[in-house]
Amino acid sequence: MRVAVDAMGGDKAPHEIVKGAVQAAQQFSDNEIVLVGDEKEIRSELSFYGTTPKNITIHHASEVIRMDDPATSSIRQKTNSSITRCVELLAKGEATALVSAGHTGAAVAASAMYLRTLKGVRRPGIAAALPTRDGICLVIDVGANIACKPIHLLQYGIMATVYSKYNFGIENPRVGLLNIGEEDAKGNDLAKETFTLLSNSQLNFVGNVEGREIFESKADIVVCEGFVGNVMLKFAQGLSMSLLSTIKTESMKNFLTKLGMWLCKPAFKTLKAKMDFTEYGGVPLLGVNGVCIICHGRSDSKAIQNAVRVALHLSKNKVNERIVSELEKISLLTANVT
Amino acid sequence: MRVAVDAMGGDKAPHEIVKGAVQAAQQFSDNEIVLVGDEKEIRSELSFYGTTPKNITIHHASEVIRMDDPATSSIRQKTNSSITRCVELLAKGEATALVSAGHTGAAVAASAMYLRTLKGVRRPGIAAALPTRDGICLVIDVGANIACKPIHLLQYGIMATVYSKYNFGIENPRVGLLNIGEEDAKGNDLAKETFTLLSNSQLNFVGNVEGREIFESKADIVVCEGFVGNVMLKFAQGLSMSLLSTIKTESMKNFLTKLGMWLCKPAFKTLKAKMDFTEYGGVPLLGVNGVCIICHGRSDSKAIQNAVRVALHLSKNKVNERIVSELEKISLLTANVT
Repeated sequence: MRVAVDAMGGDKAPHEIVKGAVQAAQQFSDNEIVLVGDEKEIRSELSFYGTTPKNITIHHASEVIRMDDPATSSIRQKTNSSITRCVELLAKGEATALVSAGHTGAAVAASAMYLRTLKGVRRPGIAAALPTRDGICLVIDVGANIACKPIHLLQYGIMATVYSKYNFGIENPRVGLLNIGEEDAKGNDLAKETFTLLSNSQLNFVGNVEGREIFESKADIVVCEGFVGNVMLKFAQGLSMSLLSTIKTESMKNFLTKLGMWLCKPAFKTLKAKMDFTEYGGVPLLGVNGVCIICHGRSDSKAIQNAVRVALHLSKNKVNERIVSELEKISLLTANVT
Repeated sequence: MRVAVDAMGGDKAPHEIVKGAVQAAQQFSDNEIVLVGDEKEIRSELSFYGTTPKNITIHHASEVIRMDDPATSSIRQKTNSSITRCVELLAKGEATALVSAGHTGAAVAASAMYLRTLKGVRRPGIAAALPTRDGICLVIDVGANIACKPIHLLQYGIMATVYSKYNFGIENPRVGLLNIGEEDAKGNDLAKETFTLLSNSQLNFVGNVEGREIFESKADIVVCEGFVGNVMLKFAQGLSMSLLSTIKTESMKNFLTKLGMWLCKPAFKTLKAKMDFTEYGGVPLLGVNGVCIICHGRSDSKAIQNAVRVALHLSKNKVNERIVSELEKISLLTANVT
């Protein structure tokens, strides 16, 4: 299998991306990695690691979409950007999956434009794994679709169920609906209509899930509109950092708490690992016609290596084919739902 | 001034509520407290504290709205509930403010039904203070209005500006719009239209604020739809608890980390105080025709005492009158905005 890696995307690109690609090429030596981006820069980065592994090739792209570029218009204007080239490789069947730590909106826009959606899928959605008391909770969507209809949220539940099964080995994942109360009739119109759709579906629907219940492992999957999911995800990053920095600042105030903090280091290390985005290896954009793994902008080589692992895993397990087949099963049920 | 305290609302009612009311009556001895609820139960609770302060009276209400009752219909059915009686005291001018740790939705519904909104206000909103790096950030709305229009969010910005000035002493508070990106043109239709309204307003508008930026003190006030705000607030509670419990569990694993945690106690105490809802003394429901302070369901006596302090402060500073006057100033500007 061939994985296209966007060498120019991310805060630490191209250095950490190329390093991660080399590590992945060594770990998954039966597969190929295509580094997409400025050929000269990539070659220069590759030279750090001695002989380039045989399963690494370069696909030149002269432009880069920066983090502050507007998503859709830059995809239209920078037609030779690294992310566009990655998506094109998938569209032409020259790669089975892509990994990018670049501009998320641009990756979503490029995928929507050149890959289109899987048969039956109305809107793609990004599924992010949040650490919970007992494991993880997959929140979908966290930013691909900020104007959701109930049918989109139902489809997110279906796609995430397939993904959860084949990526995390959860046989019959519990699907919840993010809402402002536990009672059935709670929420805005979108929540109420989605509640009805999910209740009548074949999914293992466990009802409404409130923000705090995500951490209590009430559901394995939580569906929500991209606007809310995105705000929540970024809020989680801010809150975690803020809490940890308060503890650190406070414990630096005298010798005893400083010593205490030093002794507690292993506990904080475990916490950091739990919160660490690199451990989860990127998040999938589910519903597009190809395997797209989106990584955090801060991704280092370990995160990229993990993302390639996830990309290969999803490709090998034919997650997209399974999503199409699950959607076909319920197509009669939802044919009239707009 | 007279503050009506819902003696039956909250997880720890009536015990902690009555205790908090007694403490408040002693602290603010120039003012009166009306304990609203089951007279027999309240008298029995009051008997714990010797002679009842002269500035405490009881207003009987035979019914209670429970946390799991549906908000609007229970307000219609339980016409003699403690929260309804509190609101009625305000509506009749027999109290200037109310404090309740009961069902938030019911308090909002009762206020909307019996108090109505302030002149010019389209929808009331709940303003919650979140601890940030440099102080606090006021997030409005966190659950009163889950179907917002741009004009509601603009009005939240105005009301929170007045509240911030007179409650926290912030002269010209920075107002931000909760959004999924920093760029001006980001977000769903509601966010985009609100951005334009806020840009053209007299407020100190600082643009879009992402979830993580709340903690970086980018704005003193962040406006958002009640659905998103509510999800975010509950998510914050869940995440904080989850992070702290992971650190605790991990540090219990061996003697050294256990010792470290013991030494770090003062740092965690400061963190807890920062996160502690009781410190902030409830959140105001801004925009209704009376001062309504809503407390967390878990509120103890200290939280109730603090809430009474906030209620008196807002009443004395005529925050509602100032809101009406600020809204009048901009009424010409927004007369045609729906």
